[in-house]
Amino acid sequence: MSDIYDIIIIGAGPAGLAAALYTARDRFRTLLLEKFSPGGQIINTDRIENYPAIERIDGADLVTQMQKQVESFGAELKTGCGVTKLEKLKDGNIAVYCDKDKYTARVVILALGSIYRKLGVPGEEEFAGSGVSYCGTCDAPFFKDKSVVSVGGGNTAIEETLHLTKYAAKVTIIHRRDEFRASRVLTEELLAKADEQNSNLLIKYSTIATAVQGDGKVQSVKLKDVKTNKEQDYPCDGVFIFIGMVPNTGFLKGFVELTDRGFIKCDCAYLRKKVPGVFVAGDCRIGAAMQLATAIGDGVVAAMMLKQYLRDPNWWNEPVSDLLQPGGW
Amino acid sequence: MSDIYDIIIIGAGPAGLAAALYTARDRFRTLLLEKFSPGGQIINTDRIENYPAIERIDGADLVTQMQKQVESFGAELKTGCGVTKLEKLKDGNIAVYCDKDKYTARVVILALGSIYRKLGVPGEEEFAGSGVSYCGTCDAPFFKDKSVVSVGGGNTAIEETLHLTKYAAKVTIIHRRDEFRASRVLTEELLAKADEQNSNLLIKYSTIATAVQGDGKVQSVKLKDVKTNKEQDYPCDGVFIFIGMVPNTGFLKGFVELTDRGFIKCDCAYLRKKVPGVFVAGDCRIGAAMQLATAIGDGVVAAMMLKQYLRDPNWWNEPVSDLLQPGGW
Repeated sequence: MSDIYDIIIIGAGPAGLAAALYTARDRFRTLLLEKFSPGGQIINTDRIENYPAIERIDGADLVTQMQKQVESFGAELKTGCGVTKLEKLKDGNIAVYCDKDKYTARVVILALGSIYRKLGVPGEEEFAGSGVSYCGTCDAPFFKDKSVVSVGGGNTAIEETLHLTKYAAKVTIIHRRDEFRASRVLTEELLAKADEQNSNLLIKYSTIATAVQGDGKVQSVKLKDVKTNKEQDYPCDGVFIFIGMVPNTGFLKGFVELTDRGFIKCDCAYLRKKVPGVFVAGDCRIGAAMQLATAIGDGVVAAMMLKQYLRDPNWWNEPVSDLLQPGGW
Repeated sequence: MSDIYDIIIIGAGPAGLAAALYTARDRFRTLLLEKFSPGGQIINTDRIENYPAIERIDGADLVTQMQKQVESFGAELKTGCGVTKLEKLKDGNIAVYCDKDKYTARVVILALGSIYRKLGVPGEEEFAGSGVSYCGTCDAPFFKDKSVVSVGGGNTAIEETLHLTKYAAKVTIIHRRDEFRASRVLTEELLAKADEQNSNLLIKYSTIATAVQGDGKVQSVKLKDVKTNKEQDYPCDGVFIFIGMVPNTGFLKGFVELTDRGFIKCDCAYLRKKVPGVFVAGDCRIGAAMQLATAIGDGVVAAMMLKQYLRDPNWWNEPVSDLLQPGGW
């Protein structure tokens, strides 16, 4: 057998596993490289109830099922492979370096994922999935009629906090500065919500969380007023941390173009990137909707589109149809 | 309760059901209108094994699960509602007409799906899902070491036929004309494959299928040479029909822009269309990858993006980031 894979997929989270399911089932020789264990950040989620057709599942079980399915179609999975470098070869193939090992493929799919930015305080890691959450859209319904604290000041923090107020009995948003950096429309909506009579939303400015505390599950968060340095134990059932996402793309600098936050640039119709033969899928790309079902959809789109490139490399330079551009309508 | 829904989703196939799961779970008042019964074309598929995390399921069961999940979050589903007209109202809302009924919403998602173009010959409908298929990517693995006939002459027909040769013992492609209308690259690849020694691919030009025959499952197809008018019974285990897709968008003419094949134009990043507040998801849009997982991903993207529009209608006119354009890299 040739040493050259048809497809190497970097990252075995939902996007990478979905792409591998399709490429392996299409009988392309597929290698999936994963730095840690398969699954990406979804394995830290203990209840998923927004993946269509599965009423409820925990992240680890979901990943086990996806991995089994992918391997049943013959994809190879190598874990413990932290990719350090990519190289476009003169023959058009792409070399992928993991420490001392080198693998070569006709097509590479970058499905590197991203991780939630952590506060880095005691208890945060211990209670992740048991009261500490990084996604309101995913987890708000689990805090119906409970008391939660949310942390952050950007657009996502405000949107997700407003979303939490639909479920929780009480939501306290803390922000380290004395004004939000979110857009004016969003900030005004938040302030109006807090001003409502009997509002379930409380805003605490100039406040940081210094610890998450509890016994088996979250019971309180330690808050510190950064102006007075006073600390207090603040009772709550959940802590939502909305301070950004960090894509796992550091090693790609110089190979592909990244936004200033590290997300991979690509065209949104075909998920093509600057280097011919290199596709991108999932949370590591610009514009991703950051949901399980959208990462999976992305992986399948990349797997469908790459067939056009394998058949005719000139396809890479074809512009996205005008019809798919805004105004093309 | 107001008569105005937050979201009306037209079409309860996978894209519409996925969108409804998200909007209902986000506590938006959601109405799902379906002309026939929920599911769309996927209910005709008896084995699905390429939906990530579900090893194998039949289409009807998948739809039942999705519908149950959507309704558990409070979405309303009305079946037997064939939408005949859409109207953008002066207050910015959108009216949806089904025969004599009228519903109004702040946002509409068009998830109309598309149907495979049928040959319209005896036996085709009877054996659909039991030997007659319209998707090689989906169903080729079920015809391992069997004999199949494929019908068509365009790009998709050639691609899917080549894909079938990876699985089937024998593939016969029939085309009514004496040359293919697919791209040259693809046609050459097909001809080269047929010319291989001991090839498992046979090409029959100027040939049409006039009936699909069998007993419980497909056993043969009746072929007719259009030049000599001679007919023959041609034994096979499966018939793949690749003669195009027809989106269910006829009633939209004049309301939104359609391609000449009837697909809805939209921008590929946010799935926005020409009319503010009208999104599109799934197989009825231009550029769709036409897979279960990609239709579902689309539905979730639309459900995530519409929150930006509901918050600030001016978002509708924001251009897609340059970063998401080809060359933005």
